[in-house]
Amino acid sequence: MTSNENQDPTVPKTHPRYESLKYRHKIIEGMKNLVVAEAGLIAHGRGECFDYILGEKTTQYAKKAIGAAVAAILLAEKPVISVNGNVAALVPDGLVSLSKILIAPLEINLFYQKEGRIEAIKDILLKAGATIIHGINVSKMVDLEGLESNRRKVELIADADVVLVPLEDGDRTEALKKLNKTVIAVDLNPLSRTALWADITIVDNIVRTVPEMIKIANELKKLNITQLKQILQKFNNKLNIQNTLNLIVEYIERQKEKAFEIVKFRL
Amino acid sequence: MTSNENQDPTVPKTHPRYESLKYRHKIIEGMKNLVVAEAGLIAHGRGECFDYILGEKTTQYAKKAIGAAVAAILLAEKPVISVNGNVAALVPDGLVSLSKILIAPLEINLFYQKEGRIEAIKDILLKAGATIIHGINVSKMVDLEGLESNRRKVELIADADVVLVPLEDGDRTEALKKLNKTVIAVDLNPLSRTALWADITIVDNIVRTVPEMIKIANELKKLNITQLKQILQKFNNKLNIQNTLNLIVEYIERQKEKAFEIVKFRL
Repeated sequence: MTSNENQDPTVPKTHPRYESLKYRHKIIEGMKNLVVAEAGLIAHGRGECFDYILGEKTTQYAKKAIGAAVAAILLAEKPVISVNGNVAALVPDGLVSLSKILIAPLEINLFYQKEGRIEAIKDILLKAGATIIHGINVSKMVDLEGLESNRRKVELIADADVVLVPLEDGDRTEALKKLNKTVIAVDLNPLSRTALWADITIVDNIVRTVPEMIKIANELKKLNITQLKQILQKFNNKLNIQNTLNLIVEYIERQKEKAFEIVKFRL
Repeated sequence: MTSNENQDPTVPKTHPRYESLKYRHKIIEGMKNLVVAEAGLIAHGRGECFDYILGEKTTQYAKKAIGAAVAAILLAEKPVISVNGNVAALVPDGLVSLSKILIAPLEINLFYQKEGRIEAIKDILLKAGATIIHGINVSKMVDLEGLESNRRKVELIADADVVLVPLEDGDRTEALKKLNKTVIAVDLNPLSRTALWADITIVDNIVRTVPEMIKIANELKKLNITQLKQILQKFNNKLNIQNTLNLIVEYIERQKEKAFEIVKFRL
């Protein structure tokens, strides 16, 4: 980077961290536009770190989880995609496409309320082509049992059988599970409470997960119910998370020598 | 947390993540007061993640690096402590104490310039008891070779032999090394370019490192030059980083079963 007078640097596409910096910029812009909470920036940073030690790619285990997730949503009677500020800032177009392909409505659900935030997120989704957005009208909402935070206020999620929760907090995942809903999480931390409590945990960066889900949804829509159920039955979430942890271990082991190559001429 | 209407929740001291949430709050407040850049919040999140997989404690290898770092600063002719926004927001009092004990001046050095930022950081350091703060008066500054970002502007760092850089970016660490300075880094990412390029890498959370450095400085000040040199000679930074990576691997391996205990009653 040659310029950093402001925080909107034009990063060349050849920069080794171009992708990562592009989405970091979207998150910072999201905060300025009220879409993202301040704590959402810190959460994004945590994700960046896990993505880094996962090699910044969608792993084979993430792909398995994505297959199971799409099958579960296609089999669901009342699926819902929960939307928070970070997700809306990062992948608004993808979310809207995914919602249409899977016939799973979008519902805004926020941990941090702030005047204008819901409207800012609604606007970003409308701009991305959404036609109906839930979680806006308080009069339509009910309280989710066992939850004290703002996230207890839900609309369609109250009656949903399958809920996709990208970038979720642990309390809500636990509350949703205790209400016997099938929870699909997208979380880069394979050891977060959300990752551990969910039925299907996609350990991946949401910016790669959503396009991959769209691709897989187009394929799996051709299958029949029996075939979709088979995909779900073959999936073991605990084993899948453990395999993901093995990938992290392998990455760290490799880096024990490899990382030092950049300074070798100095040693 | 029972309240999240705003982002200033009163977290009870009994909360399992009390310490982590307290410093997260300081970083968010720091941004509101101009001390911390927006990107500093994301960087803080990355650090949180690495701290998490290191068990959120100062490891034996971090303690070894701290010993070597204090010895190097005590042996230095012209040591400098470089201060950025995150460090100033997190541990202003500790920085000032450390600077006084080690007789190592503080110099503000920022990646992201913004009107009022340097003054905000100066104020926080003055309030913490600092008497002289460098890196404020542009007329006293020179350009560091091989660096294009704002961080090239330095005052005492230009002639320093040992520079302590907490939470540094890779470009500057590399530039400082190419100018043959001894670089001591505090970085939670053991694989960052800063961590790899530095002569002494303290892989630890700055909020624990600074008090530990003060404690060790009080002890090592009683030693003579030969004894201090012995501490430095025994220290092997590459091996120390590799041992730290082993701790991460051990942590992840343990969690492969242990983490799932929280959901056991459900499985």
